Amino acid sequence: MLFHVRMDVAIPRDLDPDERTRLVSTEKARALDLQRQGTWVHLWRVVGQYSNISVFDVDSSDALHDILWNLPLFPFMTVQITPLTEHPSALSANP
Amino acid sequence: MLFHVRMDVAIPRDLDPDERTRLVSTEKARALDLQRQGTWVHLWRVVGQYSNISVFDVDSSDALHDILWNLPLFPFMTVQITPLTEHPSALSANP
Amino acid sequence: MLFHVRMDVAIPRDLDPDERTRLVSTEKARALDLQRQGTWVHLWRVVGQYSNISVFDVDSSDALHDILWNLPLFPFMTVQITPLTEHPSALSANP
Amino acid sequence: MLFHVRMDVAIPRDLDPDERTRLVSTEKARALDLQRQGTWVHLWRVVGQYSNISVFDVDSSDALHDILWNLPLFPFMTVQITPLTEHPSALSANP
Amino acid sequence: MLFHVRMDVAIPRDLDPDERTRLVSTEKARALDLQRQGTWVHLWRVVGQYSNISVFDVDSSDALHDILWNLPLFPFMTVQITPLTEHPSALSANP
Amino acid sequence: MLFHVRMDVAIPRDLDPDERTRLVSTEKARALDLQRQGTWVHLWRVVGQYSNISVFDVDSSDALHDILWNLPLFPFMTVQITPLTEHPSALSANP
Amino acid sequence: MLFHVRMDVAIPRDLDPDERTRLVSTEKARALDLQRQGTWVHLWRVVGQYSNISVFDVDSSDALHDILWNLPLFPFMTVQITPLTEHPSALSANP
Amino acid sequence: MLFHVRMDVAIPRDLDPDERTRLVSTEKARALDLQRQGTWVHLWRVVGQYSNISVFDVDSSDALHDILWNLPLFPFMTVQITPLTEHPSALSANP
Amino acid sequence: MLFHVRMDVAIPRDLDPDERTRLVSTEKARALDLQRQGTWVHLWRVVGQYSNISVFDVDSSDALHDILWNLPLFPFMTVQITPLTEHPSALSANP
Amino acid sequence: MLFHVRMDVAIPRDLDPDERTRLVSTEKARALDLQRQGTWVHLWRVVGQYSNISVFDVDSSDALHDILWNLPLFPFMTVQITPLTEHPSALSANP
Repeated sequence: MLFHVRMDVAIPRDLDPDERTRLVSTEKARALDLQRQGTWVHLWRVVGQYSNISVFDVDSSDALHDILWNLPLFPFMTVQITPLTEHPSALSANP
Repeated sequence: MLFHVRMDVAIPRDLDPDERTRLVSTEKARALDLQRQGTWVHLWRVVGQYSNISVFDVDSSDALHDILWNLPLFPFMTVQITPLTEHPSALSANP
Repeated sequence: MLFHVRMDVAIPRDLDPDERTRLVSTEKARALDLQRQGTWVHLWRVVGQYSNISVFDVDSSDALHDILWNLPLFPFMTVQITPLTEHPSALSANP
Repeated sequence: MLFHVRMDVAIPRDLDPDERTRLVSTEKARALDLQRQGTWVHLWRVVGQYSNISVFDVDSSDALHDILWNLPLFPFMTVQITPLTEHPSALSANP
Repeated sequence: MLFHVRMDVAIPRDLDPDERTRLVSTEKARALDLQRQGTWVHLWRVVGQYSNISVFDVDSSDALHDILWNLPLFPFMTVQITPLTEHPSALSANP
Repeated sequence: MLFHVRMDVAIPRDLDPDERTRLVSTEKARALDLQRQGTWVHLWRVVGQYSNISVFDVDSSDALHDILWNLPLFPFMTVQITPLTEHPSALSANP
Repeated sequence: MLFHVRMDVAIPRDLDPDERTRLVSTEKARALDLQRQGTWVHLWRVVGQYSNISVFDVDSSDALHDILWNLPLFPFMTVQITPLTEHPSALSANP
Repeated sequence: MLFHVRMDVAIPRDLDPDERTRLVSTEKARALDLQRQGTWVHLWRVVGQYSNISVFDVDSSDALHDILWNLPLFPFMTVQITPLTEHPSALSANP
Repeated sequence: MLFHVRMDVAIPRDLDPDERTRLVSTEKARALDLQRQGTWVHLWRVVGQYSNISVFDVDSSDALHDILWNLPLFPFMTVQITPLTEHPSALSANP
Repeated sequence: MLFHVRMDVAIPRDLDPDERTRLVSTEKARALDLQRQGTWVHLWRVVGQYSNISVFDVDSSDALHDILWNLPLFPFMTVQITPLTEHPSALSANP
C-alpha cells in the first residue's frame, strides 16, 4: 500500500552540533535501510528546500506511523501524508 | 531532470458527454504513451480525489510545459509543480 | 486499518430534482450497507453543515478509494482523508 | 452530546525532562480515566503526527471546556472543536 | 448552552424574485420567533456584509443543528459555529 | 455603537510567575469594571481555547482602541475586531 | 470616526449592459456626493485591480453600514472594514 | 505617486528597554519629519492593533524602499505595500 | 521604475470563440508593442499554468495601472503587483 | 533553463554580529560571481522587504539546487521556486 509523504525539516539552531551530526547520520542510515528493504520506495530532495518527497510501500497505515514516528529527525519535521492508489491510466493497470 | 506534478481535475458538468469521453480517452492514451517513452515516470491516483500525483523526467522545464499544456484535460486541471533532485540519502547516491 | 474522512457535499442547484432524490437515496442505501458490513464504522453529521465526519475500517487504501470514488454523491463532494492508528493512551492499548 | 476534537501537541524542547515525563503520564492516566467513564469515547493517533483525533460525549459544552482546559498537556495543545449530531444515514437513525 | 454562529448569506442572482422574497420573509419570521422563545439570544448584522453574528441558547448541539438546517436561507449560507462557555471574568461568574 | 472582538491570549512560558499572576488579576478587575460600566457588554470564553469572544458598546472606535490598548494582557493578545449594527430581523428592530 | 474600507468589485459578465452602465454611473454619482459631504474622505483605485481603498468619516458604525449597504454596486462587492484611530506619531497628535 | 503601506509592529520582549525607548522615539521623530515634508501623507493607528495604515507620496518606488528600510523599527515590522492611483470617481478626477 | 506583475488568466468557457480569438491576438499585439517600447521588459510563461510573470519599467504606478487596466484580457486576469528596486548585490550596483 | 526564485531572508537577532557580517559579505560576493557567470540573470530587491526576486539560468534543476543550498544565507531563507519558459507573446518568440 502506497503513501506519499512530504517531510519539511527544521533543526533548531541551538541543537548541540554533535547531537545534530549524530541525528543526521542515523537518519541517513535508517533511510538507506528502509530503502533496501523496499519500504521507502522513493526518496527525492525538493529543490531549494530542506525537504524531501517520498513514497512508502507498507502493509498498513499503522506500519507507516511506526516508521515515521521513530525517524531520528521526526521531532524536527513537519509531515504531510497522502494515500495513493493505482491510477487507471498507469502502465501497471494497462498491461 | 525530475519534476513532481500534482494535477487536480474538475471537468465541468455541462461538458458534452461525447466530448468528455473523447477527452478522457485521449488523455489516457497520451499518458500511456508518455509512460512508455520514459517521460511520465510515475503516475498515481490520490485516494478519494479526482487527482493524480506524478513524476516527469524531462530534458528541460520547457519540455515539461509542452507536455502539460497539450494534455487533453489541461483546461480543466489545476497544476502544481515541484522540481526534484537526488536526495543525499537516496540509494542512488549511496551505491 | 482506519481512515478518518470528512465529506463536504454541495449538490448543484440546477440538478434535476428526480436525479437529486435518486442520488441521495442511493447514497443513503450505500452508507447503510457499508455500515452493516463493518466498513463505514462511524458516520456523524457536522452541526450546521451539509457535511459528515466518518471513520472507515478497510483492508487497504485502495479499498478506501474504491468506496469513495463510487459513492453516488462523490462528484459533488470535497473529501479530506486522514490515516489513523491506535493511540498509546487508548483503552485498546491499555487492557 | 458529541464533540469532535483534534489536538495537536507541541511540547517545548526546553521543558524540564522530568516535568515532561510527569505531564505525559498524568495526561495518559486522565485520558484512560475519561475513556472508562464513557466521556472520551474515541481516541485515535493521527498517522505521522503528534496529534490525536477524539470524540467526546458530554452533557454540555461547558463540561467539554472543563475537561480540555484541565488536561495536563493543554498549555501545549492547539485544539479544534467540531460539534457533531446524528447523521440521517447512520445505522442508529435507521434501526 | 451557548453557541456563537456566524452566517454569511449569498443568495444566487438567478433565484426567482418571488421565491427570494418568500425566503427572506419566512427567514425573518423564523428569526423573530426563535428570539421570542429565548433560543436565538443575540442577532447582529455585520457592518458592510450580508452576514450576521448570532448567539444561540439551546439544550444540545442536536437542537442547534435542527434550527440551522431548517432555516429558509440555510441552502445559501456559509455557517461557522463556535461553542461558548462562561468566562471566569464575566459578571455572572463574579456576583 | 457595538464592536465584536475576539481576543486570543498567549502568555509566554518564561514570564515571571508573579508578573503573570498580577497581569491576570488586574485584567480580571478591569474586565469586571468595564462590564459594570456597561462598556464590555458580553464576555464569553471560547470552549477549549485561551480566548474570549466579546461585545463592546462604546461611543467611538477611538474609545474602543483606548480600552483594548490598555488591557493588562494586551501585549500577549491577538485581537480581531468586527463592527456590528442592528439586524433588520432583530427583536429590537421589530417591536 | 474613521473607517478604512477596501472594496473589490466583480460585476457578473451576464449583467445586462444597460443595467451595468446605470449601476456604474449611479455609483459614481453617489461616491461624488458622499465625498462632497465630507463622509467619503479618501477614495483611491488600487493599481491593476477593479478595487478601491477608501476612508470614511462617519458618526457611527451604523452610519457606515447604511452607506455601504446602499451603494449601487454593493451586491457585487467584497468589502473589508478596518476601524482607524489617531496615531500617536501623526502630526494631528503632535501640533 | 501614492503607495498604501500597512506596518504591523512586533518588538521582541527581550529587547533592552533603553534601546526600545530610543527606537520608538527616533521612529516617531522620523515619522513627524516625513509628514512635515509631505512624504508620509497619512498615518493612522489600526484600532486594537500595534499597527498603522499609511499612505506615502514619493517620486519612485526606490524612494519608498529607502524610507521604509531605514525606519528605526523596520527590523521589527511586517510590511505590506499596495500601489494606488487616482480613482475615476474621486473628486480630484471630477473637478 | 520596476514592477513585478504576475497575471493568471482564466477565459470563461462560454466566451464566443471569435471574441476569444480576437482578444488573444490583440493582447499579443499589445504585449509585443509594449515590449518594443521598453515598457514590458520581461515576459515569461509560468510552466504548466495559463499565467505569466512579467516586469514592467514605467514612469509611475499610474502608468502601470493604465497599461494593465487596458489589456484586452484584463477582465479575465487575476493580477498581483510587487514593486521592485535595485538590489545592493546586483551587478548594476557594483560596477 | 529559467527558474524564478523568491528568497525571504530572516537572520536571527542573536546571531553573532561578526558572523552576520561575514555571511552577508560572502553572500554578496557569491551573488556577484554568479551574475558575472550568467547564472543569476536577474536580482531585484522587493520594495519594503528583506527579500529578493531573482531569475536563474541553469542547465538543470539539480544545478539550481546546488546553488541555492550553498548560499551563505540559505539557512535563514524561505525559498519559493517557479519554473519559467518562453512566453508565446515574448519578443524572443516573435523575431
